[in-house]
Amino acid sequence: MRRALAGLVLACGLAASGAAPAQEVLEKRVFEGGAYQTRGGATIANLRIGYQTMGRLNAEGTNAILICHFFSGNSHAFGRLSANGPAGYWDAIIGPGKPIDTDKYFVVSADTLVNVNVPDATTVTTGPASINPDTGRPYALTFPVVSMRDFVESQKRLLDSLGVKRLALVAGPSNGGLQSIEWAAAYPGFIERVMPVIAADIDAWMQGWLDLWESPIRLDPNWAEGNYYGPGREPPLRGLAEAWKIVTLHARDRLWAKQYDRRVPEGQDPARRIGDRFAIERWLDDAAAARARTSDANSFLYMVRANQLFLNEYPSFTAALAGGPARWLVVSAPTDRVFLADGVRDFIETLRGAGKQVETAELSGPLGHLNGVVGMGPVGDRVRAFLAQ
Amino acid sequence: MRRALAGLVLACGLAASGAAPAQEVLEKRVFEGGAYQTRGGATIANLRIGYQTMGRLNAEGTNAILICHFFSGNSHAFGRLSANGPAGYWDAIIGPGKPIDTDKYFVVSADTLVNVNVPDATTVTTGPASINPDTGRPYALTFPVVSMRDFVESQKRLLDSLGVKRLALVAGPSNGGLQSIEWAAAYPGFIERVMPVIAADIDAWMQGWLDLWESPIRLDPNWAEGNYYGPGREPPLRGLAEAWKIVTLHARDRLWAKQYDRRVPEGQDPARRIGDRFAIERWLDDAAAARARTSDANSFLYMVRANQLFLNEYPSFTAALAGGPARWLVVSAPTDRVFLADGVRDFIETLRGAGKQVETAELSGPLGHLNGVVGMGPVGDRVRAFLAQ
Repeated sequence: MRRALAGLVLACGLAASGAAPAQEVLEKRVFEGGAYQTRGGATIANLRIGYQTMGRLNAEGTNAILICHFFSGNSHAFGRLSANGPAGYWDAIIGPGKPIDTDKYFVVSADTLVNVNVPDATTVTTGPASINPDTGRPYALTFPVVSMRDFVESQKRLLDSLGVKRLALVAGPSNGGLQSIEWAAAYPGFIERVMPVIAADIDAWMQGWLDLWESPIRLDPNWAEGNYYGPGREPPLRGLAEAWKIVTLHARDRLWAKQYDRRVPEGQDPARRIGDRFAIERWLDDAAAARARTSDANSFLYMVRANQLFLNEYPSFTAALAGGPARWLVVSAPTDRVFLADGVRDFIETLRGAGKQVETAELSGPLGHLNGVVGMGPVGDRVRAFLAQ
Repeated sequence: MRRALAGLVLACGLAASGAAPAQEVLEKRVFEGGAYQTRGGATIANLRIGYQTMGRLNAEGTNAILICHFFSGNSHAFGRLSANGPAGYWDAIIGPGKPIDTDKYFVVSADTLVNVNVPDATTVTTGPASINPDTGRPYALTFPVVSMRDFVESQKRLLDSLGVKRLALVAGPSNGGLQSIEWAAAYPGFIERVMPVIAADIDAWMQGWLDLWESPIRLDPNWAEGNYYGPGREPPLRGLAEAWKIVTLHARDRLWAKQYDRRVPEGQDPARRIGDRFAIERWLDDAAAARARTSDANSFLYMVRANQLFLNEYPSFTAALAGGPARWLVVSAPTDRVFLADGVRDFIETLRGAGKQVETAELSGPLGHLNGVVGMGPVGDRVRAFLAQ
């Protein structure tokens, strides 16, 4: 389950040997963090996470920016990892001359711990699918629980190893926004600006929804209490696909779904056959089945738990934010069905109540929550101005 | 699976023989509709649905009101079915002297086809758990698909049998609101007023969510493609409970969940043990497991499909509403997370675009969608005024 470093730097080699690419091809690197003690007190023998950078760190180590990824994402927030590969999810606002200007800033993005994209060759993570060196077999559910704060701690070690002394900005969408807030609470003196996007508090409502997301995995007999790794065993792809179906629809909006209104796939007759499907169901089935094949079910459970443990070391959301840095740009999508507009409003009020300087920006587009992942272009000028202050 | 009529009238008998009750005890009756051809063209040999009434039908048959129930409900919208039993879900607005005044109106409410409450002795329905007279065994998935229009048709036969010639109002929450709209489309000349509560169009977004609700049932090995009835077999209670968990949280709101914020049950340590639970998860587990024991999994699937087939015989939502009655009171909850405020707004605009006279009322309270089931009291005066016009 561990990725070989050789495979990961291939992209860089290709770029160097091929015809001049339109854009620099980035190298995906691996941070080897050694032994790591989790916030819960357990020890992970060998912490490894993948990361990518763009731009140059200045001599003082003070022009760095950290981008944190969403629930199902990885470090690929910007640039290309191969000459003809896709651009990162926030490439519209990160790069030379772009709002997060890599001619000025050294931008870093890392794979989280317990990242779900285990089968993906460009993701490097440490989680339940990793080999436990004590047994030579995957940890499965013996992997320790990690929290959002553990995500921050692993990234802090990475940044220390790179010589970063200060972050001009920490930012990210959704789970990445939560990481940004957790960073602001944990290391206020280290951070100048925070930009959480499509994120707010993880209250009991959100803890409950996260549980609903994961529950199909536990229903799949192939899950087998997490012991599905190894020869002769099948991963719980049906349960994992149903889990992704919930996430997939929840992260979108009814305006996006309009394209499937009153549509029925060829050969299907749901008005007469109970097993037949509507077009929206068929689309969800297919998208989720594909997503299940490129992800790991146990890692999904651990990622859910890390989200549920957002700011779990503080007595309240207000207390966690009290000591944080002064400048915030909170970006939200009014049609977000995951982090509801009411919750974002409460979050902004909490920040202002704590005396922070808070700007806000709203994302439009038909994609609901996902507007914050793939639709950041329109607020690029706001991001640029926020960094210029 | 069929309920004996004798058991159902027991409540009435108790009321007659006991000490004078504070309130009339209603009789739950059974409508025997005979053979019924579904809108999809299949035949159900023996249509049976339960119903209850309050008030008296006038000689002209024109003072009737029909109340349609929500997804997980039954005919018990008003009154008590036993001396010490609970009141119906809309009892705050239905009864003698109440906004829907049974001193003036003859109020009817019926169990739908494919009602989920099969194990409940006061629910009478025809669906996949019913005995197929051709085989002497439950239909399971051989039961024909029924649509929202089939719900209307079964109720129309009931109303005809009672001598009802006109409805002064058809109303209901959620699934009951959808039935009200379907009624308005099907029998415009029969209806004076329509009051859909916490309801709007079932677009592809909602069809997709309905699929997410039911998907855990299909994952449970006990479901066995619907063949779980009979000795030696176990119903898919785990999958059904997970389905109810989604419905239960979706039908509430984050303000309701606040009571569980940062709470962990005694003996649980979710920051250290991956299998441990937060308080909100434990509450959902317990509530859903209890609900699963009083419902039937196949009926849940058929109820989902009936909802997905809302207005399926019309080319568009606009076309369906064009010929309907003139007077509408649309009641919504701004914090409804099932029928989103945007969808309700579109629904109201469609009605007004079709030249209808539309009033609106909004429900407050922390319960989101459920405000329309248990929180109708505050809009009682609006309902009364609507009926007086």
